[in-house]
Amino acid sequence: MDKGLLFVISGPSGAGKGTICKQLVKAINITMSVSETTRAPREGEIHGKNYFFVSKEAFQKKKKENGYLEYAEVYGNFYGTPKEFIMEKIGSGHDVVLEIDFQGALQVKEKFPDGIFIFILPPSMKELKKRIVNRGSESEKSCKERFNNALKEISYIDKYDYCVINDEVTNAVRKVRTIIEAEHYKVTKEIYDQIQKYKEELLCSTPQ
Amino acid sequence: MDKGLLFVISGPSGAGKGTICKQLVKAINITMSVSETTRAPREGEIHGKNYFFVSKEAFQKKKKENGYLEYAEVYGNFYGTPKEFIMEKIGSGHDVVLEIDFQGALQVKEKFPDGIFIFILPPSMKELKKRIVNRGSESEKSCKERFNNALKEISYIDKYDYCVINDEVTNAVRKVRTIIEAEHYKVTKEIYDQIQKYKEELLCSTPQ
Repeated sequence: MDKGLLFVISGPSGAGKGTICKQLVKAINITMSVSETTRAPREGEIHGKNYFFVSKEAFQKKKKENGYLEYAEVYGNFYGTPKEFIMEKIGSGHDVVLEIDFQGALQVKEKFPDGIFIFILPPSMKELKKRIVNRGSESEKSCKERFNNALKEISYIDKYDYCVINDEVTNAVRKVRTIIEAEHYKVTKEIYDQIQKYKEELLCSTPQ
Repeated sequence: MDKGLLFVISGPSGAGKGTICKQLVKAINITMSVSETTRAPREGEIHGKNYFFVSKEAFQKKKKENGYLEYAEVYGNFYGTPKEFIMEKIGSGHDVVLEIDFQGALQVKEKFPDGIFIFILPPSMKELKKRIVNRGSESEKSCKERFNNALKEISYIDKYDYCVINDEVTNAVRKVRTIIEAEHYKVTKEIYDQIQKYKEELLCSTPQ
């Protein structure tokens, strides 16, 4: 059985990476990575779906044991990607998709360089501005912050393997699916071992 | 405009790489690389389609000027992949496919490491044997030779980026097309430069 692969998806806020990931999970056999967090669940959030809600003690323990592919502290709460969850999925032949910002992605790349890193871009910065402003709920200050963050985020694109421009969601999802499929045709150590088997088969079956 | 890409396709005799390349050229906008040779044209062969037929002097001159991505001498005749032909196509945004054995592919990789190297495998060695024997025209000695060459060829698979098992031609062509498309989503220097433009655009358009 082939091993699964880990796909890490980043992009500036407003590029539409969240929608793409959701559509991807619906469309193909890929598991979304679920983070652990020490913050309290919000209304409607489901343990094991939105997050795994854990105690600060449990988080600190796992962190010390190198149990997270990446983690971050935000406003006093911790968030982390549990390594075991992903390794089990991959080991049993399932692909995993992890949606995360560039800081998280860089941590993952260090701990799991076999991951495939995909960056989602808006078709233009004009479009990104429109998408951020159209969210409505944002104050002017928050809009500017998002822009500055987007600016910072996209300057890390050279750390990624692939780049998909989200001009239209269906199209962007199709492109990400193409990348996922192609990555499964990469020559790996497993294929090389398979080849050794081929060679033995060949040596035994040379025409008489 | 995006630059084109060079796809190098190898595989043991009988794996079906020739058929795959032909179908590929029919199906998508990709140009087959045409070799230069010093041997005389055979009946039905068209200059510029099957080969560019050149004199030994012209070949030697170009060889000295580093004008071939790879070359080989077979039974006193020279065969070479003209660099200029490929560079022009790529420079004008066209993809090129080059069908070649592993010795040629290794030479190309050295001179053009940006190439994408795809290895075509038969579904099994049993199937490969069947395909070689079924060609009919082969003597027993020639069959054994082909097997030995296949054995040698596939041991170089670790020099390739991708591997496609040709269980069924239509399926194999679809897989190669998937690889070609995905490779166009790779993050390149061009995209990084584009990003710098994005950033300038962003700096100018921060909401007032």
